Amino acid sequence: MIGPVPRRTAFERIVTLDAANIKFGPGATGETGFEARRLGLLRVMVLTDPRLRDGPQVAAVQASLGGAGIDATVYDRVRVEPTDRSFREAIQEADRGQYDGFVAVGGGSVIDTAKAANLYHTYPADFLDYVNHPVGRGRPVPGPLKPLIAVPTTAGTGSETTGVAIFDLEGLHAKTGIAHRALKPTVGIVDPDNTRSMPPLAAACTGLDVLSHAIESYTALPYTQRPAPDDPSLRPAYQGSNPMSDVWSARAIEMVAANLPAAIAGDTEPQAQMLLAATFAGIGFGNAGCHLPHGMSYPVSSNVRDFHPEGYPDDHPMIPHGMSVILNAPAVFRWTAPAEPQRHLQAAALMGADVSGVGPDDAGEATANAIIDLMRRTGMPNGLSGVGYTPADIDVLVRGTLPQHRVTKLSPRPFDEADLRGMFESAMRYW
Amino acid sequence: MIGPVPRRTAFERIVTLDAANIKFGPGATGETGFEARRLGLLRVMVLTDPRLRDGPQVAAVQASLGGAGIDATVYDRVRVEPTDRSFREAIQEADRGQYDGFVAVGGGSVIDTAKAANLYHTYPADFLDYVNHPVGRGRPVPGPLKPLIAVPTTAGTGSETTGVAIFDLEGLHAKTGIAHRALKPTVGIVDPDNTRSMPPLAAACTGLDVLSHAIESYTALPYTQRPAPDDPSLRPAYQGSNPMSDVWSARAIEMVAANLPAAIAGDTEPQAQMLLAATFAGIGFGNAGCHLPHGMSYPVSSNVRDFHPEGYPDDHPMIPHGMSVILNAPAVFRWTAPAEPQRHLQAAALMGADVSGVGPDDAGEATANAIIDLMRRTGMPNGLSGVGYTPADIDVLVRGTLPQHRVTKLSPRPFDEADLRGMFESAMRYW
Repeated sequence: MIGPVPRRTAFERIVTLDAANIKFGPGATGETGFEARRLGLLRVMVLTDPRLRDGPQVAAVQASLGGAGIDATVYDRVRVEPTDRSFREAIQEADRGQYDGFVAVGGGSVIDTAKAANLYHTYPADFLDYVNHPVGRGRPVPGPLKPLIAVPTTAGTGSETTGVAIFDLEGLHAKTGIAHRALKPTVGIVDPDNTRSMPPLAAACTGLDVLSHAIESYTALPYTQRPAPDDPSLRPAYQGSNPMSDVWSARAIEMVAANLPAAIAGDTEPQAQMLLAATFAGIGFGNAGCHLPHGMSYPVSSNVRDFHPEGYPDDHPMIPHGMSVILNAPAVFRWTAPAEPQRHLQAAALMGADVSGVGPDDAGEATANAIIDLMRRTGMPNGLSGVGYTPADIDVLVRGTLPQHRVTKLSPRPFDEADLRGMFESAMRYW
Repeated sequence: MIGPVPRRTAFERIVTLDAANIKFGPGATGETGFEARRLGLLRVMVLTDPRLRDGPQVAAVQASLGGAGIDATVYDRVRVEPTDRSFREAIQEADRGQYDGFVAVGGGSVIDTAKAANLYHTYPADFLDYVNHPVGRGRPVPGPLKPLIAVPTTAGTGSETTGVAIFDLEGLHAKTGIAHRALKPTVGIVDPDNTRSMPPLAAACTGLDVLSHAIESYTALPYTQRPAPDDPSLRPAYQGSNPMSDVWSARAIEMVAANLPAAIAGDTEPQAQMLLAATFAGIGFGNAGCHLPHGMSYPVSSNVRDFHPEGYPDDHPMIPHGMSVILNAPAVFRWTAPAEPQRHLQAAALMGADVSGVGPDDAGEATANAIIDLMRRTGMPNGLSGVGYTPADIDVLVRGTLPQHRVTKLSPRPFDEADLRGMFESAMRYW
């Protein structure tokens, strides 16, 4: 039966796969100018961060743009782990420059900043207008943005494939974001040559972020268990697990487990595989969404006291995003497994665990153990206590998680404050 | 090391994944009007074929477009297995109507006809200008086309995800095509409710076409063994097997083998899975390409004498596209396996064959046997002899395959005329 209008049903029946234009390969950065010209660009703002400013990636992008006759101005004041203030500075520069497009060269912080600059420059608004509910007003992006070419230099966020920009709202001490398909970069140039120089701890943190993106989207509430929207325009970008995102997520889990330790050690081909895995996981979670490990990570990062991870900028204490995420992950999957035991078992199997003979009741433990094993092999701290938290901090961490509806509502198992408390307690120490 | 310009290397190092915008689910057809409005359309040409004209799919599309205030004119003269002449008729109608966009409701024939109408209407040219080398001049599409919404009604071609339009050039008795990423539909609405009414043989033929799309792209010449283009604009749409197309192709092989017999029998959920498999395989071969089973299928279809398959239009003899393809497939994979034994073994395993203990020397036989098993369970003729060919026809079939460079050049194993002859001989009878 076919209906002339969308049927009203209690649960969702429809799912979308949003486009991802990816160009992958060593030396692909040299085609940035070709891509910009194909998109009709003449004058672009190249966003990067101070540490990358004089590095080979920005030089390669500039040379390629110059070779294509494109006028490029470099803006290097992106903050690693950006804030609303650092977003605003980039927006002001975008307003000043009369650019017809954007090129982001960096990690998720840079690409997310470029998305925000493109958005507020194209459709000026009060800053909170486009920020996710309930922190902001969640206003949809009014129309298409200018072209944005993303050239990732870390294998982590998958930001080159998603319509999400994450930042720390300084007044609230909480990470939040802007999410709309219009923010998605026009093309992602995924070049393994650009990630060779990552410090080991950064490679580990970004790689474990990728792993969690993939497991979270694979185990997220199925889209058919989400309420159907009253109108197709209200269907969220994060739709829940679905047959299209599953394809990407499953492959990404497999690739991270197989390649992360060797990539950290500096082997070239595993590093290329990690970069590709980050992109795959990005397509997965960009269409399905993350859930509790990400939702719980934001207060973990925001409430940092004096943790200074090796190889990161030393001007402010920080817990890198990927580390905040993975510190919660084993505790979360232990707790969510009863809602989707087969998918949790499958995730463990994709990580290489032998799950023959493991019953559904032990699915959470199998997933947690496979993750903990990889955490230990990649030098992660031993749970939240390893980055300075104590049980006395749990109230703050729970309160910081509650506003993260956008992601936490995709938990496959409904939760309340007591459940969050239990997960944070269980995340304090793993071995 | 990063170079400012694409490096000159003997072999390709870069691969692209082209976007696919897919909306999947029962009732998704009811969102055609929403999608058209989102694309800014006011007046569209709805292409379909005479058999679908008064069916529920066209009615649902018309109701949805009407509800969104969009003026829709139905053109129902698409030919099943289209020709240059039937393409031209649709182009003339597109020229007359002053449409700002196109909606295709039907199988691959309808969607491909809509692509051609959109192309020649937007950038008028001599008909052979855009047709693939060496049959046509292979001129690239000059720029973006008008929006095209594809609503497939058969689970087969994956045309809703690809930039390829296939037709029979009447003067040559050979299938050829037009291939450029600009032809790709803006969005594909993949609605399982639309394929419920397929006759069993049509479901079998389209399903086996999907299977061959997936195995061909999975076993195609790896992109790293293709010569690098002198310029990125010369990189072909069909790039060879690669890590991004592999994800889609592998999953599609699995889905077809698991669902085709039950889908033919009329079960609803397996039919939905087949439709999704067709889309997945389309993304796979749209970026990787097909090879010999497709290249060899065109003369098999074009030189038909008096075969009239059940459930197809009876006004002209025909061998359905999917049947022509699968009749060659076992013979081809037997022959190509030595070039990529692990991938052929993996294809057999994805089809459910037990390949433990099967050595690389038997990989071709394992793949062929898994396909033949599915052919017998789905009522296919016993090889080319089953549709009326004899060894005396092999010269004609070989000559008809030679111009199909676009696909045959992606064979993982180099071939000559004698090899083609051997494959056609081996395809005459399978059991």
